[in-house]
Amino acid sequence: MSKPLRIGILGGGQLGRMLLQTAANYHVETFVLETGNNPPASSLCHHFIEGDIKDYNTVYNFGKQVDVLTIEIENVNLDALFKLEQEGLTIYPRPQALKTIKDKGLQKEFYRTHGIPTSPFYLITHKYELNAHLGFFPVAQKLRTGGYDGKGVEILRDETDFAKAFDAPCVIEKLVDIEKEISVIVAKNALGEIAVYPPVEMVFDPRYNLVDYLLSPAELTAEQTQQAQTIAVQVMNALDSPGIFAVEMFLDKAGNILVNETAPRAHNSGHQSIEGNYASQYEMQMRVLQNLPLGNTEAIKPSLMLNLVGEPKYSGPVKYQGLEDVLKMKGVYIHLYGKHETKPGRKMGHVTILGESKDELLQKADFIKQTLKVISI
Amino acid sequence: MSKPLRIGILGGGQLGRMLLQTAANYHVETFVLETGNNPPASSLCHHFIEGDIKDYNTVYNFGKQVDVLTIEIENVNLDALFKLEQEGLTIYPRPQALKTIKDKGLQKEFYRTHGIPTSPFYLITHKYELNAHLGFFPVAQKLRTGGYDGKGVEILRDETDFAKAFDAPCVIEKLVDIEKEISVIVAKNALGEIAVYPPVEMVFDPRYNLVDYLLSPAELTAEQTQQAQTIAVQVMNALDSPGIFAVEMFLDKAGNILVNETAPRAHNSGHQSIEGNYASQYEMQMRVLQNLPLGNTEAIKPSLMLNLVGEPKYSGPVKYQGLEDVLKMKGVYIHLYGKHETKPGRKMGHVTILGESKDELLQKADFIKQTLKVISI
Repeated sequence: MSKPLRIGILGGGQLGRMLLQTAANYHVETFVLETGNNPPASSLCHHFIEGDIKDYNTVYNFGKQVDVLTIEIENVNLDALFKLEQEGLTIYPRPQALKTIKDKGLQKEFYRTHGIPTSPFYLITHKYELNAHLGFFPVAQKLRTGGYDGKGVEILRDETDFAKAFDAPCVIEKLVDIEKEISVIVAKNALGEIAVYPPVEMVFDPRYNLVDYLLSPAELTAEQTQQAQTIAVQVMNALDSPGIFAVEMFLDKAGNILVNETAPRAHNSGHQSIEGNYASQYEMQMRVLQNLPLGNTEAIKPSLMLNLVGEPKYSGPVKYQGLEDVLKMKGVYIHLYGKHETKPGRKMGHVTILGESKDELLQKADFIKQTLKVISI
Repeated sequence: MSKPLRIGILGGGQLGRMLLQTAANYHVETFVLETGNNPPASSLCHHFIEGDIKDYNTVYNFGKQVDVLTIEIENVNLDALFKLEQEGLTIYPRPQALKTIKDKGLQKEFYRTHGIPTSPFYLITHKYELNAHLGFFPVAQKLRTGGYDGKGVEILRDETDFAKAFDAPCVIEKLVDIEKEISVIVAKNALGEIAVYPPVEMVFDPRYNLVDYLLSPAELTAEQTQQAQTIAVQVMNALDSPGIFAVEMFLDKAGNILVNETAPRAHNSGHQSIEGNYASQYEMQMRVLQNLPLGNTEAIKPSLMLNLVGEPKYSGPVKYQGLEDVLKMKGVYIHLYGKHETKPGRKMGHVTILGESKDELLQKADFIKQTLKVISI
């Protein structure tokens, strides 16, 4: 305790930035590995090391400098993590859990193996294999690796969609008739303690396949809430790793809850927890990393989170148009990620609204969406 | 907006640290000036400049690098600030307001001049002058400059206390028969907008006569609350400066509210606002510095703040004994300031508790006080 715990974070984006804002409440020394000039997390750590999180030697050497290692993005060198773990380094999430999740094929097989409800699927390696599964359509085709932020996913309804299909190792999943998309953040520490957040509800922007807004807690029956949380714990137990995880699920029109996918880290669907819940997902991650008791996941008040993404047609030095009008509102929290350049669809920040009712939250969200625009000068 | 606003902070202690945690929600570039190795704010800014905030040239050159300058401690070189302001730099609080406040003699005269209620006082330069004011006793004798954190203040009841009296320029204030000590945080931006927080109450530990914890909002009648807020606004208007200020007041046994003193910056009596109020005092300071609309000062829930200070007899590398047990509690927030060495009475962090009632808050605070100890290894 006396010597600050050295915490290494692989990745220097906004999730790392928000983790570091919370890390400053603890007696720790922080290290960030990321490429490029001034990524969002680089100015909030004790030690910023410029380097590629996908490179074996870079990750290995970075890991050798710290007491505990974590990630803020999945796209890291796994071999280096396995080697570091073998040599005794504490890594949360564990490399094995990360390996399972990083490959969407392995991830789906993992759900099937552990009896976790998920949509039916096939694994294919080449585009031409789609022909063998036409009876299974419509499907979501997902790249097994390398997809992020809505990229790497195509909806294929029939043969006429083959033009946009990926010719690479993919999962094809039976398209779910979605009533709602929900997410449950869940944390586990090395003591075996598990903390589950109330489910949140994601509403998507069809333009970018990014979350448009997020409502916390989700509007679900008590039974659905219970079921979603139970499934999240089931995933957590099966993954067998301390860490913070986001289990994204579908509620289908028939009332079934199916796991869509799991993220082995803090997640966009947990941003509202900074103000909306007693312990934020970043607070929880900090506690996991220090092997401290987990926090209280309850919502303080209903909240809504809006992503601030770059407007279409604007690229260049960022300008937040309409910020003043939004800051005049009550119960509104601005989070800008410190990115200098905007481009269409780039996540530049988010806004969280605390309120007393869904109606109040939606009204304020509508105003913010019409008012606050991420453009360039 | 496109080029991040360059914000300079004079001082690198815990107030700067918490300001920087909030600054990371905005599109700004941060600079900190402070001496020494790894002060609390040094790892959370874009640019840490090691230097003496009391030195003219150091402060002047630091100011030349930024667009707007602020402080997290009063003890800065005023001449450099006046020069920088004359040359066009935006400085919040304005050097003139800082000058008035830094000297407790000028500060008391300022209250008198502006008809702001405060206890009667005399200014003296030498200890022997106390003899001329014996009819005025009991008094609080305060050094006009250089006091902080309760240092530089002596209570003189009669001649037998002369041994501990200061022989330096001082204010002697008629001792107030205190019912409660309260504080009102108030912010003003350059647009002239003013935001006033609900008063908080500082509760003393009778054993040591030290501020023990802070209760938000204070238990006052509606009329007293109104009166305290009106006085804080009166101070703010008279100071004629954008910034964030803490106006500390006494409620005396006769029901009068008297200003004790004002701090021209974020303040210990506003720490609970991070979790307890919609906009924290640091959020407010960030908005003032960017000339943005001010936020919502309302309390989200009742809260209580406990300072974590070094236990008597322990000096050296810090250890937070009992932290695990405190983190098991609901609605408890830990803030450690990143100081490596503890010493008796040193402010090492604070804990904020959110709750539904005063009883709940006090019960939890009692447990925390008995459980969490700042010691050395």
